[in-house]
Amino acid sequence: MSTIEIPDGSLFGLDNLPYGVFSPANARPRAGVRVADSVIDLHAALRDDAFAAPSLNPFMAEGPARWAAARARITELIMAGELPPGAVHPLREVKLRLPFEVADYVDFYASEHHAANLGRLFRPNAEPLMPNWKHLPVGYHGRAGTVVVSGTGIVRPSGQRKEPDDPVPVFGPSIRLDIEAEVGFVIGVGSPVGTAVPTGAFGDRVFGAVLVNDWSARDLQAWEYVPLGPHLGKSFATSVSPWVVPLAALQAARVPLPGQDPQPLPYLRESEDWGLDIDLAVEWNGEVVSRPPYASMYWSPAQMLAHMTVNGAATRTGDLFASGTVSGPARSQRGAFIELTWGGAEPVTVGGEPRGFLRDGDTVTITATAPGEFGGRIGFGEVTGKILPARAEPFGVDS
Amino acid sequence: MSTIEIPDGSLFGLDNLPYGVFSPANARPRAGVRVADSVIDLHAALRDDAFAAPSLNPFMAEGPARWAAARARITELIMAGELPPGAVHPLREVKLRLPFEVADYVDFYASEHHAANLGRLFRPNAEPLMPNWKHLPVGYHGRAGTVVVSGTGIVRPSGQRKEPDDPVPVFGPSIRLDIEAEVGFVIGVGSPVGTAVPTGAFGDRVFGAVLVNDWSARDLQAWEYVPLGPHLGKSFATSVSPWVVPLAALQAARVPLPGQDPQPLPYLRESEDWGLDIDLAVEWNGEVVSRPPYASMYWSPAQMLAHMTVNGAATRTGDLFASGTVSGPARSQRGAFIELTWGGAEPVTVGGEPRGFLRDGDTVTITATAPGEFGGRIGFGEVTGKILPARAEPFGVDS
Repeated sequence: MSTIEIPDGSLFGLDNLPYGVFSPANARPRAGVRVADSVIDLHAALRDDAFAAPSLNPFMAEGPARWAAARARITELIMAGELPPGAVHPLREVKLRLPFEVADYVDFYASEHHAANLGRLFRPNAEPLMPNWKHLPVGYHGRAGTVVVSGTGIVRPSGQRKEPDDPVPVFGPSIRLDIEAEVGFVIGVGSPVGTAVPTGAFGDRVFGAVLVNDWSARDLQAWEYVPLGPHLGKSFATSVSPWVVPLAALQAARVPLPGQDPQPLPYLRESEDWGLDIDLAVEWNGEVVSRPPYASMYWSPAQMLAHMTVNGAATRTGDLFASGTVSGPARSQRGAFIELTWGGAEPVTVGGEPRGFLRDGDTVTITATAPGEFGGRIGFGEVTGKILPARAEPFGVDS
Repeated sequence: MSTIEIPDGSLFGLDNLPYGVFSPANARPRAGVRVADSVIDLHAALRDDAFAAPSLNPFMAEGPARWAAARARITELIMAGELPPGAVHPLREVKLRLPFEVADYVDFYASEHHAANLGRLFRPNAEPLMPNWKHLPVGYHGRAGTVVVSGTGIVRPSGQRKEPDDPVPVFGPSIRLDIEAEVGFVIGVGSPVGTAVPTGAFGDRVFGAVLVNDWSARDLQAWEYVPLGPHLGKSFATSVSPWVVPLAALQAARVPLPGQDPQPLPYLRESEDWGLDIDLAVEWNGEVVSRPPYASMYWSPAQMLAHMTVNGAATRTGDLFASGTVSGPARSQRGAFIELTWGGAEPVTVGGEPRGFLRDGDTVTITATAPGEFGGRIGFGEVTGKILPARAEPFGVDS
């Protein structure tokens, strides 16, 4: 039997137990749970076929009763030191994979500070918030096929850009490559077409949360986004953390929203709090440049899901919906570099240099912690990515 | 051995051979080819495991050489009257299914007439075309999980709407429910992340084309779409025809584009023509109200694919990208009712009544034909849908 030592203050103790997919050396990917600096092979430990797949989707589809039962059983095995031999792997010896198959991906825009900052930057002569912003959680669909796991290199995208004074657009690698620090929510139990998921059913449908870096090419985005929204400025890559923190681990992090005025329409009202007290940190080449507080978000994830389905849209196991950039009221709390550096006009110092947007070779890592059930804190897995140079010409393998 | 009688003038002769997925009475879904009013069970006829799945994805992933070989062999078996007994089903006795698993869904906006008409309707005090429109094929991601096959009932969506003079938004069933008649293109062979698909590689990647009805709730869309684009106004349902017409059947339909001025950037230029001479027809409760000509589209599907991937975005087998509404220059060629009736102000007559948007019980059917290889015409399968009443309250099964 194997035991796992959990050091005091570990962000991955028994109050966390996030799920992921990993490959031991030279072996097939499989579902696991992180405990301290170890990964438990769930199929080996629980002998449960829901964990045989190289994706969390089959387990996530089983619903809250099964999620609770698995969590209880995993806790029991760890506490009793009864994990089967071979079921425990050191974290440093495994390769972490994309934890779930992404069905549809929707990105919201739920931070008032972020939306107002971007409004000021993109539309300097207009009201920063659009008239609809406080009435509904604004969101749009992103590209599910380019959601990648933390650690995947991010090739600098090429595309069209046009500065306001340029007569015509030019083509080339993005020169305003940015991040968006977000929290994403993963649907476990889908909902059929023609029905809506009320805010009170959030916990029956949503399996857990990940960190998201919604890489953004601001120059491409600014030129393309009117009138149908962002497309190539976002679709080249979206990174997620390898560990899905189950909602059960986030109970102690639940807080009221900061306040909504005007009161939203009835279908968006909440009977329980789904604000979340998650503290994010953004590291640029190892230096923390921002600490975005998730508790400052205007719209809750339960409201996002209620809105997304109120028109009868179906959801599926593996649907990912992200919060949009998390930005607090202070400059040091802004979750995108375009805001943090005010479009590059107010650089931040990284490695002793003034910096605005991302250079090739830069690495950005987003981490987060939240209050845990036992009075300490739990951690999200980090989401990290390094910027790789643009392809020499746009038509890689096909040319 | 079975033979199939192909009447003179059939839209589904040997020059068409579209692929789909069907269920014979009480049997599992399987891949098939339509010939005249029959469906050939491909696994039974060809003994090829690529056709054993209830989806065209495995076959589509195999690439152009295999597509050509299968088409040749199917033609041979039909001409020789050598189809195995039991491999041929009358069309009227089978149920047609969604022909492929949709990976990502992107909707473009490639008709100049449509974009200009919608600009005039949504933004009456501004230039109808945005500055970017003639420089790049504008598009956005839609909801893959709500793409449904022709014949699926369309529940009227509910949501927020706000007329310009209303002080606050109201919630309720959409009162401006509309259609968009489009042509969609299905990726067979995906492309890896970090590479782009040049216009000249269109035929190596794209398997075929379907008709698309991108149902649109104009009141929801008008209120939500700034600044991140359409979301709930579209995400409740998108219908596709059950037959995928292979590119091989569209060779005689290829025509030059009407002309692009200014000349697009090099990555968007074409060395061969991918304009398509497809004639669509829109029937409202059985009466033809519009005949949109696909040959009038400004951007070609090869340009759409080149643009969609020039930032390095990967594509996958089953990706669907649609043209956006097909509208010609004449009023009788407009592919959305909001244009055809100028926002309801200039009704069309249907069943002897003046009509603007869709009522419960209305049925819309889009059909299309194109020149075939033998001098006649080939048909697309129709895409049809009937409007069902909104749910009495928004929270169906979950409340």
